[in-house]
Amino acid sequence: MDKEAAVLILSGGMDSTTLLYDIGQKYEVWALSFIYGQRHVREIQAAEQTCRKLNVSHEVVKIPNIFIGSSLTDDIPVPHGHYTEESMALTVVPNRNMIMLSLAIGYALSNKIYHVFYGAHSGDHAIYADCRPRFVSAMQAVATICDQKEVHLRAPYLFITKNDIAVIGAQLGVDYSLTWTCYEGGEYPCRKCGACVERSEAFAFAGMVDPLLEGENK
Amino acid sequence: MDKEAAVLILSGGMDSTTLLYDIGQKYEVWALSFIYGQRHVREIQAAEQTCRKLNVSHEVVKIPNIFIGSSLTDDIPVPHGHYTEESMALTVVPNRNMIMLSLAIGYALSNKIYHVFYGAHSGDHAIYADCRPRFVSAMQAVATICDQKEVHLRAPYLFITKNDIAVIGAQLGVDYSLTWTCYEGGEYPCRKCGACVERSEAFAFAGMVDPLLEGENK
Repeated sequence: MDKEAAVLILSGGMDSTTLLYDIGQKYEVWALSFIYGQRHVREIQAAEQTCRKLNVSHEVVKIPNIFIGSSLTDDIPVPHGHYTEESMALTVVPNRNMIMLSLAIGYALSNKIYHVFYGAHSGDHAIYADCRPRFVSAMQAVATICDQKEVHLRAPYLFITKNDIAVIGAQLGVDYSLTWTCYEGGEYPCRKCGACVERSEAFAFAGMVDPLLEGENK
Repeated sequence: MDKEAAVLILSGGMDSTTLLYDIGQKYEVWALSFIYGQRHVREIQAAEQTCRKLNVSHEVVKIPNIFIGSSLTDDIPVPHGHYTEESMALTVVPNRNMIMLSLAIGYALSNKIYHVFYGAHSGDHAIYADCRPRFVSAMQAVATICDQKEVHLRAPYLFITKNDIAVIGAQLGVDYSLTWTCYEGGEYPCRKCGACVERSEAFAFAGMVDPLLEGENK
């Protein structure tokens, strides 16, 4: 039987890349990455490499840059150290997830696809209002009525942590050398930003060595 | 007292232009227009002219073109005559309104603005799923929880018709010479597409002569 098609928002980070491997068994995945002026555009290259490796269709879309006030897109320094409410707030791109989900749903509908996946997880709930379960529920509701046909929006990692995702990834054999997490734009992960700190904890939790840091130590 | 600020999605057509005049008394309006590959990009010029005339801030944003299958963006002929369910369906850009609203909400949040207006009206309900009251309600719900601060999404014309909007516009003295409705890309309205037919009915209902057609007849 032919697999059903699904659009996946693929950032090129750990979470969505793991989700790609995870749903790839069941769905024919159409991956969609977004450029929104982020400093860590290197993650898009990682997404491309993963899609090439897995032979998955991949589209990169540029979100119009009408946003101000986030350290991910502006010349505000990326906060270092473990996330705090305050430092995490600086990395918010206003309404980014609703925008990405809207475009992903439009892309899905254009291609007669009725499943859209994204990798929100519970670690993001504290600060990112648009990663919280009630936001996801509200978006799921709107996705079912935005067109003649219902779109099923799914965030299967919504109630698990990044650590749990790393465990799933270890089981699935995800090639994490083709992922990018660091918010800085360097050649190697900075190991200092909140994203690096979280990634490192997740690898340790899952008993894995981060292939990106292996490279650095060689 | 300073006026509160509000973002308005301004297509350059009759409905949103009337809404601009309508809310301009109460709010400091930040108008936002979208280019999504539509054939009738001339409406954007109309929006610009209106904003210049009213001294309103105006931003034009290009929506990434990842959509297929609509006669507004592709080489499918624009259907002529009065809208039917079938012909109207050909003019749907998948999920266009959710995309525009998401971007408008992001733009508002970036500028610390917490009101977003758009000109959906009851004549669009039949075919455009994303103009229906239940869609607007669902978007209103999500707008209140997508960020730390609530965004108030308002569609004050949702339960009135285009004819009623023309009556409001006549009262407000809207300069309809600076609006564009026709779905074709010509210099003058085609008078044949569904949009032209509806516009003409609305002007007749409000007892106005369409200034765009006056020009043609000279």
